[in-house]
Amino acid sequence: MRSRSGAIDWRAQKRKAGLMKSLVLERKDALSLRDFPEISRAEEALGPRDVRVKLHTVGICGSDVHYYTHGRIGPFVVNAPMILGHEASGTVIEVGAEVTTLKEGDRVCMEPGIPDPNSRATRLGMYNVDPAVRFWATPPVHGILRPTCVHPEAFTYKLPDNVSFAEAAMVEPLAVGVHAATKARVKPGDVAVVMGAGPIGLVTALSALAAGCARVYVSDLSDAKLEIAASLSQAITPVNIRSENLVETVQRETDGWGADIVFEATGSPQAAAQVFEPLAPGGCVVMIGGQPDPISYDAGAAMVREARVENIFRYAHVFPRCVGMLASGAIDVKPLITRTFSFDDSVHAFEVAASAPAGDVKMQIELPQ
Amino acid sequence: MRSRSGAIDWRAQKRKAGLMKSLVLERKDALSLRDFPEISRAEEALGPRDVRVKLHTVGICGSDVHYYTHGRIGPFVVNAPMILGHEASGTVIEVGAEVTTLKEGDRVCMEPGIPDPNSRATRLGMYNVDPAVRFWATPPVHGILRPTCVHPEAFTYKLPDNVSFAEAAMVEPLAVGVHAATKARVKPGDVAVVMGAGPIGLVTALSALAAGCARVYVSDLSDAKLEIAASLSQAITPVNIRSENLVETVQRETDGWGADIVFEATGSPQAAAQVFEPLAPGGCVVMIGGQPDPISYDAGAAMVREARVENIFRYAHVFPRCVGMLASGAIDVKPLITRTFSFDDSVHAFEVAASAPAGDVKMQIELPQ
Amino acid sequence: MRSRSGAIDWRAQKRKAGLMKSLVLERKDALSLRDFPEISRAEEALGPRDVRVKLHTVGICGSDVHYYTHGRIGPFVVNAPMILGHEASGTVIEVGAEVTTLKEGDRVCMEPGIPDPNSRATRLGMYNVDPAVRFWATPPVHGILRPTCVHPEAFTYKLPDNVSFAEAAMVEPLAVGVHAATKARVKPGDVAVVMGAGPIGLVTALSALAAGCARVYVSDLSDAKLEIAASLSQAITPVNIRSENLVETVQRETDGWGADIVFEATGSPQAAAQVFEPLAPGGCVVMIGGQPDPISYDAGAAMVREARVENIFRYAHVFPRCVGMLASGAIDVKPLITRTFSFDDSVHAFEVAASAPAGDVKMQIELPQ
Amino acid sequence: MRSRSGAIDWRAQKRKAGLMKSLVLERKDALSLRDFPEISRAEEALGPRDVRVKLHTVGICGSDVHYYTHGRIGPFVVNAPMILGHEASGTVIEVGAEVTTLKEGDRVCMEPGIPDPNSRATRLGMYNVDPAVRFWATPPVHGILRPTCVHPEAFTYKLPDNVSFAEAAMVEPLAVGVHAATKARVKPGDVAVVMGAGPIGLVTALSALAAGCARVYVSDLSDAKLEIAASLSQAITPVNIRSENLVETVQRETDGWGADIVFEATGSPQAAAQVFEPLAPGGCVVMIGGQPDPISYDAGAAMVREARVENIFRYAHVFPRCVGMLASGAIDVKPLITRTFSFDDSVHAFEVAASAPAGDVKMQIELPQ
Repeated sequence: MRSRSGAIDWRAQKRKAGLMKSLVLERKDALSLRDFPEISRAEEALGPRDVRVKLHTVGICGSDVHYYTHGRIGPFVVNAPMILGHEASGTVIEVGAEVTTLKEGDRVCMEPGIPDPNSRATRLGMYNVDPAVRFWATPPVHGILRPTCVHPEAFTYKLPDNVSFAEAAMVEPLAVGVHAATKARVKPGDVAVVMGAGPIGLVTALSALAAGCARVYVSDLSDAKLEIAASLSQAITPVNIRSENLVETVQRETDGWGADIVFEATGSPQAAAQVFEPLAPGGCVVMIGGQPDPISYDAGAAMVREARVENIFRYAHVFPRCVGMLASGAIDVKPLITRTFSFDDSVHAFEVAASAPAGDVKMQIELPQ
Repeated sequence: MRSRSGAIDWRAQKRKAGLMKSLVLERKDALSLRDFPEISRAEEALGPRDVRVKLHTVGICGSDVHYYTHGRIGPFVVNAPMILGHEASGTVIEVGAEVTTLKEGDRVCMEPGIPDPNSRATRLGMYNVDPAVRFWATPPVHGILRPTCVHPEAFTYKLPDNVSFAEAAMVEPLAVGVHAATKARVKPGDVAVVMGAGPIGLVTALSALAAGCARVYVSDLSDAKLEIAASLSQAITPVNIRSENLVETVQRETDGWGADIVFEATGSPQAAAQVFEPLAPGGCVVMIGGQPDPISYDAGAAMVREARVENIFRYAHVFPRCVGMLASGAIDVKPLITRTFSFDDSVHAFEVAASAPAGDVKMQIELPQ
Repeated sequence: MRSRSGAIDWRAQKRKAGLMKSLVLERKDALSLRDFPEISRAEEALGPRDVRVKLHTVGICGSDVHYYTHGRIGPFVVNAPMILGHEASGTVIEVGAEVTTLKEGDRVCMEPGIPDPNSRATRLGMYNVDPAVRFWATPPVHGILRPTCVHPEAFTYKLPDNVSFAEAAMVEPLAVGVHAATKARVKPGDVAVVMGAGPIGLVTALSALAAGCARVYVSDLSDAKLEIAASLSQAITPVNIRSENLVETVQRETDGWGADIVFEATGSPQAAAQVFEPLAPGGCVVMIGGQPDPISYDAGAAMVREARVENIFRYAHVFPRCVGMLASGAIDVKPLITRTFSFDDSVHAFEVAASAPAGDVKMQIELPQ
Repeated sequence: MRSRSGAIDWRAQKRKAGLMKSLVLERKDALSLRDFPEISRAEEALGPRDVRVKLHTVGICGSDVHYYTHGRIGPFVVNAPMILGHEASGTVIEVGAEVTTLKEGDRVCMEPGIPDPNSRATRLGMYNVDPAVRFWATPPVHGILRPTCVHPEAFTYKLPDNVSFAEAAMVEPLAVGVHAATKARVKPGDVAVVMGAGPIGLVTALSALAAGCARVYVSDLSDAKLEIAASLSQAITPVNIRSENLVETVQRETDGWGADIVFEATGSPQAAAQVFEPLAPGGCVVMIGGQPDPISYDAGAAMVREARVENIFRYAHVFPRCVGMLASGAIDVKPLITRTFSFDDSVHAFEVAASAPAGDVKMQIELPQ
């Protein structure tokens, strides 16, 4: 929306923002694209350290789909209509009075979880483990498949020109992988295993390589997914555990030593029970995949290796790092974006996503600009 | 054994060493104190970097007792008569040609596990996770409840004058606690929980305090054991989980934050399932107690805290540190030595130990000098 | 000030607080104890997350004395009358509307530096290196040698009953030592050198021991100071470098290995030039003492040891840890408090402090209650 | 040298090895390519854990050139003819009786420093800081610009098929950069500065990127060197400090935060004095460049950032990691190999190297096969 002179007319953008047609999960299995008056009113309030963002691209996450198909994730239950979406990029269209680092027109991506800035965890630098964090599209907090949102400046990150909106909307899932690789404390030349070739497994594999791994073995049951994994880098070795023994492969190719790091990104209890088998002495296991039920493992296998285990919960302080790595080419997420829908097709997009097509990694929705 | 002039007659000591009456576990439930010709011959060979040590004090470890009462520990089965004992102090009576750091007459303690010096793990500084390590009183390797042994200089540590033989024989179990506290990376002022008030739990509690913890909660089911724990330091709070809720106590006394570190020193699967409950966000769990069977835990509880888990296997590079802390008074293990037997009474000592008297922590056996 | 019924009359306390007689550094060399109207007015404003504290005990720090005798510290110049004092304990007499962790009557100690909560450094958990930090008694910020102050709840720490006001006013200097020992990442059994037996050297020695060091060598030029150091613990070895070679002593008593950690707490360039000499291979040097001028060192000595150097600036997140260690007995600072003055004598107290009597470590001033 | 059947005739290779024409530094400024009978005899002894290697490619290091042009490096003086060269790859032509990981015909690269396996530093995993290490081409130890050498299996690393001899001879300098990046503990997305665009600066820049840096600023005085730096990766930004202010550039492009890591790879005292200026709060400085004289720095600049400084001395345990990264494509050193000479031209090669042509990074010498 540009004025006759060619300049963007932010005032008009803000008026347009008032419409607030949103993708609403009415209840389990029922999505609608409709006006959502409540959110429109909520969006009016812009605090002094907030920015208003016009959304551009929103990725569909497995958790969005799970709320759609199950109506809940663990203790979080959809009891009232909720807007979906939490992987987002857009453009700043208004800034609060005390905002200093952003201005109208800045292209940005946003972190979907807002912690209590005064909590003990936040003050210690671990805001992701603050129990009071409010997270988009997690009941009762609305997501951002809507025209605009108001967000704290502190969790809104400016994009360099060479990072597209589509790439920027990948920062959220990428952040999980980068956080996992950071916690693993990868040493240059490490060998890693990533269990699971879903979206989180793939961003973890890319992050592990970017963080210094020489080689990454990605295991899965799906050849289609493994094919995508293998296409990402010559340093990735796909292992289909239906036909190949992961432990034997890793042992053979590391002179019997094992992998320095094992990332568990399936959320499957069977995988979780085997994380120590391919691990080298003194190695590190990183648990990423959520596990709804208690899981079981061989404590002896962990002990004889003196394994260190890092448990991951979302991420903290990594969004600007991800943006920097996309900008410099250290990580390329473009091959992971396999399909794009218009906002008008977003209900259909979720139906497709719910069918879990094997050849897709990340589907995204583009909002009208 | 001193000559008329008062000097110790090492030559006579060596002759005497030749007798090799040993405490032999003939098979499950059968101990005898008898001459053991095989070990006597083995002891003749003194390599250029070895020392010969006349044993003075040997502690009785739970694993010694377990071999006695069960004939095996996991994959290690007593298939032939085996000398017991691996917590030892003594006096150097002969040194190999290339030994430089020890001499006849030095009072020493010894590390019971000898790794392959050329293994990858050893070269990386983690000799405890070298699978080829040979460990005293672990079939088929003999222990040291016998008059003398030959040991590598590299794993034999000189004692300062103010560390007694009895304290020195405590270095082996203490090393487990100090290694655990080292891996935990205690920060000054941390609050810790130690699950289990057995010998390993108690040395862990002492080590955690020495390593910087402000307070340690020790939990157990036995009031007698907890009484001993509480007597060790005013900074130790005993918690009998029969009558008191550990998690509530820790939460209440840490303003709802939890313990920075939880040491699991029971080896009980019930305890292992609960290690994350009292843990603070960003905290560390240290698994010390061996678990013969697969154990189960709530992965979500580990994740929302981003818990780090360190799995412990014996120790590496901590014996000289333990000796230093005993010498300076940083750790006092004397209250843990609750009973001492003569070598002639050693079969009886094991019978007592097998009865697991509640008021005892560590029993030791003194060899004739 | 108690009502007839014996209860403390907080309303009256607040009125009394209005007087605001303060210890004012008028300019270099000129102190006066006088009413300070400006601070009285400033104290009226109590934010929703603030508490008002009636001061009880204030320690005299070397920096307070330095402003008195020199009128400046580096770039910080006393251009206008400034209240001195930043090591403080007291009692909460009023709480802001949103305060949840403190209440009237709570005994507390306070952290003297208040960072910008929204700065990048603060959010990463390193608020001490936020350049925007405002620090008591650092021009133009006033100190707290006055009846009351208003302080953020977030930097005010409740005291357990068994920690006295005098000990609590030691938390500030102690925090420097504890922070230094934390950054050093002491391993249990480490051997440390602390260069300097002034107040910071001594709290560093105590912190190093509490953090796991087996032994600490404290070096200085003053026998009087070293005598105090030696009296603190049998694990402290005093070394007067006028008469004894520190490097030779450490080498001899560590079998030629050296000290695992060297803390530089003198601020002397001569000391800073020698920190690597007594250091073991792979050891850590911690620079605590401020150095106004560029300092020089032998880079080769640092390299052949692969020394790690940690530079310390105040502290972050350690006040509650210090309180916990005082409460549990892990650290005892009482022997460091060598003289106490009444507030009416505070000008005299500074004159005494400026004369640097060799037998004193920390002097404190008690305010009327 | 192949037999008529086409198989390599190792027996003949060994005979040929006996010739031992070597590149000998007779004294400062005097090189000759001549038979060297002493080394020929020394090479006869093959220990049970040794291998005999036929050299293939040897890189010319700045230290080799410095011995040639100055006759000494610090305390190491060329008092007798010495063979040069320590960056080497080749082929195993004979193995000792106890060698298990290598066999005749294996292509390998070798680590030039051999530590005492029984030293305390080596046992702790830090063999590079063992003072007893013996290092090729460091008086009085000969280098390997000669037909064959005998080397411990433990420091000889097998090459995968896709790593050429030329790349393998780059592992030695690369190892310095990888070790530096490892010690820096790079987090994914860090921004780094590398001071110096010489061979070590360039391998450090590549290592920093491989270890997770998003961007690396390389500073130097030479446009020719910076052009090479810039050509290595789009993530490298060259900064000629003659015309551009490094600190301002870094501050501007990091929103005023600074670089997370600064690698000093010049060995210049001027550079060393400025390492803290571009550094972010909480950042890390890595000192790589050797400094013969005491160096000076602003301690205050280090303190207000709480800078961590890591001092680097060669490397430990990184050769196999480097080989792995070359094999997987994580690091590409081929652009750094700018000129290759035959062994017959090796005196000339050193003359060229001594002239320090601006457009060259690494020159190598190929031995006859």
